Amino acid sequence: MTASTEGRTMHSPPHQHGAAPHQSRSVARHRAAVAELLAPLLTGGKTETLALRDALGRGLAHDIAAPLSLPPFANSQMDGFAVNSSDLPDDGAELRVVDPVPAGATPAPLERGCAAPIMTGAMIPDGADAVVPVERAIPDSFPAPGVASTVWLPATAAGTFVRAAGSDLAAGEQALAARTFLGPAQLGLLAALGIREVTVHRTVTVLLATTGDEVVEPGTPLPAGKIYDSNGTLLESALRQAGLTVVRTAIASDRPEELQALLRSHAGSVDLIVTTGGVSKGAYEVVRQAMDGQAAEFVHLAMQPGGPQGIGEFDGVPFLGFPGNPVSCLVSFEMFLRPVLSEMFGSPAPRTSLRARLAHGLTSPQHKHQVRRGSFQADGTVRLEGGESSHLMHALAGSNALVHVPAGVSALAEGDEVEVWML
Amino acid sequence: MTASTEGRTMHSPPHQHGAAPHQSRSVARHRAAVAELLAPLLTGGKTETLALRDALGRGLAHDIAAPLSLPPFANSQMDGFAVNSSDLPDDGAELRVVDPVPAGATPAPLERGCAAPIMTGAMIPDGADAVVPVERAIPDSFPAPGVASTVWLPATAAGTFVRAAGSDLAAGEQALAARTFLGPAQLGLLAALGIREVTVHRTVTVLLATTGDEVVEPGTPLPAGKIYDSNGTLLESALRQAGLTVVRTAIASDRPEELQALLRSHAGSVDLIVTTGGVSKGAYEVVRQAMDGQAAEFVHLAMQPGGPQGIGEFDGVPFLGFPGNPVSCLVSFEMFLRPVLSEMFGSPAPRTSLRARLAHGLTSPQHKHQVRRGSFQADGTVRLEGGESSHLMHALAGSNALVHVPAGVSALAEGDEVEVWML
Repeated sequence: MTASTEGRTMHSPPHQHGAAPHQSRSVARHRAAVAELLAPLLTGGKTETLALRDALGRGLAHDIAAPLSLPPFANSQMDGFAVNSSDLPDDGAELRVVDPVPAGATPAPLERGCAAPIMTGAMIPDGADAVVPVERAIPDSFPAPGVASTVWLPATAAGTFVRAAGSDLAAGEQALAARTFLGPAQLGLLAALGIREVTVHRTVTVLLATTGDEVVEPGTPLPAGKIYDSNGTLLESALRQAGLTVVRTAIASDRPEELQALLRSHAGSVDLIVTTGGVSKGAYEVVRQAMDGQAAEFVHLAMQPGGPQGIGEFDGVPFLGFPGNPVSCLVSFEMFLRPVLSEMFGSPAPRTSLRARLAHGLTSPQHKHQVRRGSFQADGTVRLEGGESSHLMHALAGSNALVHVPAGVSALAEGDEVEVWML
Repeated sequence: MTASTEGRTMHSPPHQHGAAPHQSRSVARHRAAVAELLAPLLTGGKTETLALRDALGRGLAHDIAAPLSLPPFANSQMDGFAVNSSDLPDDGAELRVVDPVPAGATPAPLERGCAAPIMTGAMIPDGADAVVPVERAIPDSFPAPGVASTVWLPATAAGTFVRAAGSDLAAGEQALAARTFLGPAQLGLLAALGIREVTVHRTVTVLLATTGDEVVEPGTPLPAGKIYDSNGTLLESALRQAGLTVVRTAIASDRPEELQALLRSHAGSVDLIVTTGGVSKGAYEVVRQAMDGQAAEFVHLAMQPGGPQGIGEFDGVPFLGFPGNPVSCLVSFEMFLRPVLSEMFGSPAPRTSLRARLAHGLTSPQHKHQVRRGSFQADGTVRLEGGESSHLMHALAGSNALVHVPAGVSALAEGDEVEVWML
């Protein structure tokens, strides 16, 4: 919330609409500034080696080369007969059936003129170069083992229904690149390669402090004129969902000394400080005041919502000051902190970005990048939820996407295409 | 893996291609069967009440009505002057400036002919009905408090820059519906409503057993003909990412008695059993054999991959038998278990479904629903990763989407639209 205290002079506040572009910092420039601020977290070399199951959702620290090929050996793609294709002329041939090849076994070499029943995934015997599916054989079933028998098989090209060794991935090739997000498929691949531990970036620990005399904890009585703190829950959840560790302070009042003491008591044990509120251009904003003498600046972005932002360091710890309205907080996180972490560490996974058609028209301040909330539908349209105002928590909770209206665009019509990020 | 053992008769296996449609169960019918199987988990009424921070990622058990309005009181959308609009005729008026209204305070009623400096989020005083932004005032800044002064303000319509009480959500209205996925925005909304605890569905506990004589644990030596177990890591991760609790057994051999004993030792403490492998139509598939005498059936779906599936109960515990290839496992989970859980509980969040244009053509078995893996690009195209074969773990690890080719379609061209699910 924009903070003020009775009896203080309130100087000209920032204009919420129509700010001239030269006064504002672009979204791209601020994202670069956040990346620069956080870069030391990466170069600090903080990694840890975890069992695969504990690495879910983490970002890979180093490239991983395949220690073996996938598949490790040539194997059958079908239940059928392993053959040497040169034993099968154009009109097929009758071959002698030898012992079957179960999955998991090392088969004997296949003699010329023979066919070995083979199951899906089983190793292709030496001497065989193709598999004929059992349903193309005459008879079209496997003979009982131990019973001498023959089978007629049609002509088959070398390589048919054979999964060649290394056809998915050859030994020595890159299996995963550094900064890959480790989801189920990536961890499954490492397991397939016989790997049981993986080195990942350590999680970033964030100190989260919400501020404001007007803000009270949920579950307590609500005095007139006050509101419940939703930013704390909203941002803590967003940070944790993105894989960060969150340390939350009590709600800080509008007294800067109190906020400073609160931050100092935790700053030694965290990688990043995030505050909410108190960053507007008024003279007495609590976060601005608490940062007095620190290497921090307060800027206004050409973005709506989320215009006022703080960035810098507090006692040497990287600091981001988000504005106080809940939607502004979440947009600040999604526009700056989350993508920078994704880019640096590979975790969290980047948001899915796609193009959608607006279900209705909108207006946007000409010189600002507007971020609206919306519901993306499977038919490729996106419906805006709530207006542009940044206090609309219920509308936010009914949204599944952020809708981007770039600077320079002041109006869009129904059916116009927009960039959408899936939340 | 399709299991077989040397010395056993191998009967006609399932056809991987071109199975006649009457032999196969449709995807929709199998999904309905999975929903029916799991329905008792919902009616069992297993819920728990958690602090908001612990409810992240869970599904809401009941509808929640708003205990208060949002905003709770009319407040200012701008830093400006709170006025009674009828004091401002068409050509504006000079009004007397009274004490400012900080956020969080209960202001004195506004007398006629007066203007109260007011900050964003502060309560609109009784007697005021509009806010004039400070930049439209003359002078365009706030006077020092305690100094008697006046301000010229232009004509302003009632309601201007006032956030009315309940304009986001009115007390008594539904805030969130049962089965809502609780992400940051939903938990933030509950906090804004003053709620600190929420009743959610309990997590489902899954017993996960991978099977196969040919499968060995990652981190151990790899004998010739064997492969590493990737299904365990892949599925455990996918289940945990979807919010389930996973109990994992050791890899089960192809001896049915051993698998039965393994399942029995855990069945009493889990909600669901998931196995991988041993569900094909051969006579000696370990999962089929272990389910002998149980209320379970083994079906073949008109789907590629993931055709062979087991479904039923083992000692009264719901059971799903996924096929043994890793891609088949993941597709089975994504096509059946995950969407059914989303629908029942609201958690996990449903996959984003969208339409994309194919970056290249493909073929698909006419009578099957084919599920390919692909990389969805921000330009709205999707590139297929790897072929249709279900052993391609590296290709899966490079994908971010499932690509659906419905039954009845045998070929698609570059640029054709397909349904895509974002992973």
